[in-house]
Amino acid sequence: MAAITHKALKSTGRIFANLAIVRGKYLKQTPRRFSSFPQEAVAIQYRQHGDPVKVLFWSEVQLRKPEQGEVMIKMLAAPINPIDIYMIRGTYPLKTELPHTAGIEGVAEVIEVGEDVSALKKGDWVIPAKGGLGTWCTHSVCAAEDLTSVSRKIPLLSAATLAMSPCVAYRMLTDFADLKEGDYIIQNGANSSVGQAVIQIAAARGIRTINIVRHMPADDRRIKYLQDIGGTHVLTEEFLRSGQMKEFMTSLGRPTPSLALNGVGGPSATEMLRYLAPGSNVVTYGGMSTQPVIIPSGKLIFKDLHFHGIWMMDWNQKHYADSKQKRQMYDELVDLSVQKKLRPPFCELVPISDFCEAVEIAVAPFKSAKQIFVMDQELLKKLNETKMMQSDNVIREEVEKDML
Amino acid sequence: MAAITHKALKSTGRIFANLAIVRGKYLKQTPRRFSSFPQEAVAIQYRQHGDPVKVLFWSEVQLRKPEQGEVMIKMLAAPINPIDIYMIRGTYPLKTELPHTAGIEGVAEVIEVGEDVSALKKGDWVIPAKGGLGTWCTHSVCAAEDLTSVSRKIPLLSAATLAMSPCVAYRMLTDFADLKEGDYIIQNGANSSVGQAVIQIAAARGIRTINIVRHMPADDRRIKYLQDIGGTHVLTEEFLRSGQMKEFMTSLGRPTPSLALNGVGGPSATEMLRYLAPGSNVVTYGGMSTQPVIIPSGKLIFKDLHFHGIWMMDWNQKHYADSKQKRQMYDELVDLSVQKKLRPPFCELVPISDFCEAVEIAVAPFKSAKQIFVMDQELLKKLNETKMMQSDNVIREEVEKDML
Repeated sequence: MAAITHKALKSTGRIFANLAIVRGKYLKQTPRRFSSFPQEAVAIQYRQHGDPVKVLFWSEVQLRKPEQGEVMIKMLAAPINPIDIYMIRGTYPLKTELPHTAGIEGVAEVIEVGEDVSALKKGDWVIPAKGGLGTWCTHSVCAAEDLTSVSRKIPLLSAATLAMSPCVAYRMLTDFADLKEGDYIIQNGANSSVGQAVIQIAAARGIRTINIVRHMPADDRRIKYLQDIGGTHVLTEEFLRSGQMKEFMTSLGRPTPSLALNGVGGPSATEMLRYLAPGSNVVTYGGMSTQPVIIPSGKLIFKDLHFHGIWMMDWNQKHYADSKQKRQMYDELVDLSVQKKLRPPFCELVPISDFCEAVEIAVAPFKSAKQIFVMDQELLKKLNETKMMQSDNVIREEVEKDML
Repeated sequence: MAAITHKALKSTGRIFANLAIVRGKYLKQTPRRFSSFPQEAVAIQYRQHGDPVKVLFWSEVQLRKPEQGEVMIKMLAAPINPIDIYMIRGTYPLKTELPHTAGIEGVAEVIEVGEDVSALKKGDWVIPAKGGLGTWCTHSVCAAEDLTSVSRKIPLLSAATLAMSPCVAYRMLTDFADLKEGDYIIQNGANSSVGQAVIQIAAARGIRTINIVRHMPADDRRIKYLQDIGGTHVLTEEFLRSGQMKEFMTSLGRPTPSLALNGVGGPSATEMLRYLAPGSNVVTYGGMSTQPVIIPSGKLIFKDLHFHGIWMMDWNQKHYADSKQKRQMYDELVDLSVQKKLRPPFCELVPISDFCEAVEIAVAPFKSAKQIFVMDQELLKKLNETKMMQSDNVIREEVEKDML
């Protein structure tokens, strides 16, 4: 496949050329307070691929005024996405020029606009429109076309986590089956951030979900949480493989699921195939088990199942910021977020200066919360202390304290 | 999946009720010579599923006059298809009422027409329009809508083998990719009867084929034969797995294959995926290796490959004899057959009285020729002796004698 290469990838590298670098070490210092038009930024970068804890470094970056078609943005919050880890390790198919600023997700505020930029204005909230933007920084100058504006009505953490998982969930629920209210879908990896978004978007559309989760000690609470956000049925992989699963599916009656969403691969994916209606579609967005998707030939020939994949970065490349499909998607996702029908996944807020510890937590197995960098210390304090936090991520209040 | 059940399946069982049965034994006797309107037929049937050699029996069947919407047909020739073996064993998803007459393929002549039948007339050549007709017989009375007429210009053996393999090949080359002249496709199991049809239909359309065959002692000749009927490149599975394959594919330049046809499964299918263009479709029609289709998740996500299956019986159920798509398909296949651009697969002609030996040969591994029952002894003699044989199956003359 042709590697995704576009202007943003190159320009990101360019912005951060000629840097003062403190290699292999992160500084606990607070980024300097900037005036309304900052001269310098901080960025978490890497010059070579490898273990994130070893190759990431803290950079102080000279900023320049945005030129034609460009804007200057102030990053507000940026999560650690699993893709970030793969990209830093160099095992992801999206390759960028080095040095590169890490981070594919996040929300920023436009603080300066170059000439000929009509789609964005000062004060707009923006999220990356494509892959490779480099969001683990305090400020950046980038092409306006590499950004998509989102409503400021959306909770901050929803905005920070909107560009990937909810979009993947939206596309899977929209592009592969003609789902009507009352229809069933089945998914594994249901407690991943994509899985949580699937549950909520489906629930908002009246689609019923059968959600398979990995067996874990905290099972009961995990199951309860997924039910609380709208999961119709939540079952463990153990149950999926058991004789009871067939009985359970029979008890649901018609219609049987016409869509399966697979983020796991291996036996977990193969088992789901038993319970699909003929002619169903199966969409793979991840392979958490690191095992391939294994399909008995009869499921293809006699059951007429169809298998596809979704890669959000590729979809984004093919759909410009102002495309009708993209606008519709963001409108629905923002609307659901504002209504609190689409909540951000479990998350833990950390200052960007703690990037090494945060990355260590992110790469550990069985992590339960997404690490989100909050760039401004005052904002971080406010998010962690005020009611804003409650309305942003009420789940955190209710469940997270003693569960995570 | 709802089992395919239709009138034909039930009526076939009914026609042959109350029979004189010689169980577990086949008679070497010649079927009685019938008048122009026969009273009796011979059919190879089974009352229970199991080893074909044990459960098949020779039946003498009372024929009745065709009623409204029915015709009486005289079978001319009917092959042993691998599906027949699975159906007799009871391992095929298409279930029929028992007792059942074996055989899903073949060509017959209409010899009597009931009331309200306008689509068929006496003397027409017909092939089964759906599954489960029961073609291993000398005569049968069945619903006209379960038959599709084919031109009598077509060679007899082409007509007898037209209903399955060439149709599967046609659909795979037509429904899953927008192929243009000069495009490449890749297929494994290229010397199966479907594989041979794929090569020939593709060649007639100017599509180039990369054909993977199992390594066999007679390799060179097998490869030469597949090249002779239009295979652009013929390679062994051993070569497919070797380091040379990548070099070979690079040497072909653009366009890379956008369609893969899989009749084998297992590593043979997985290896083909490496050489497909992003966004390609992979269609499975068989699983000769008895191994599942194994897809690394990255091939779905990052390479955007799509996987489908084709089941001709299901397609036929969904498309009536007079549907535009079906008519177009038969027109092209008949046209190619008449022009000798689509030859029947290697075959061996046998009297229906030899059904037990023929079945034994058909179930043996590494068989090289399709067993075809010819119902009329005079026709069989003529086919085996005259020039008609040459024009029907010239390959037999050229290659088969010392190869098979």
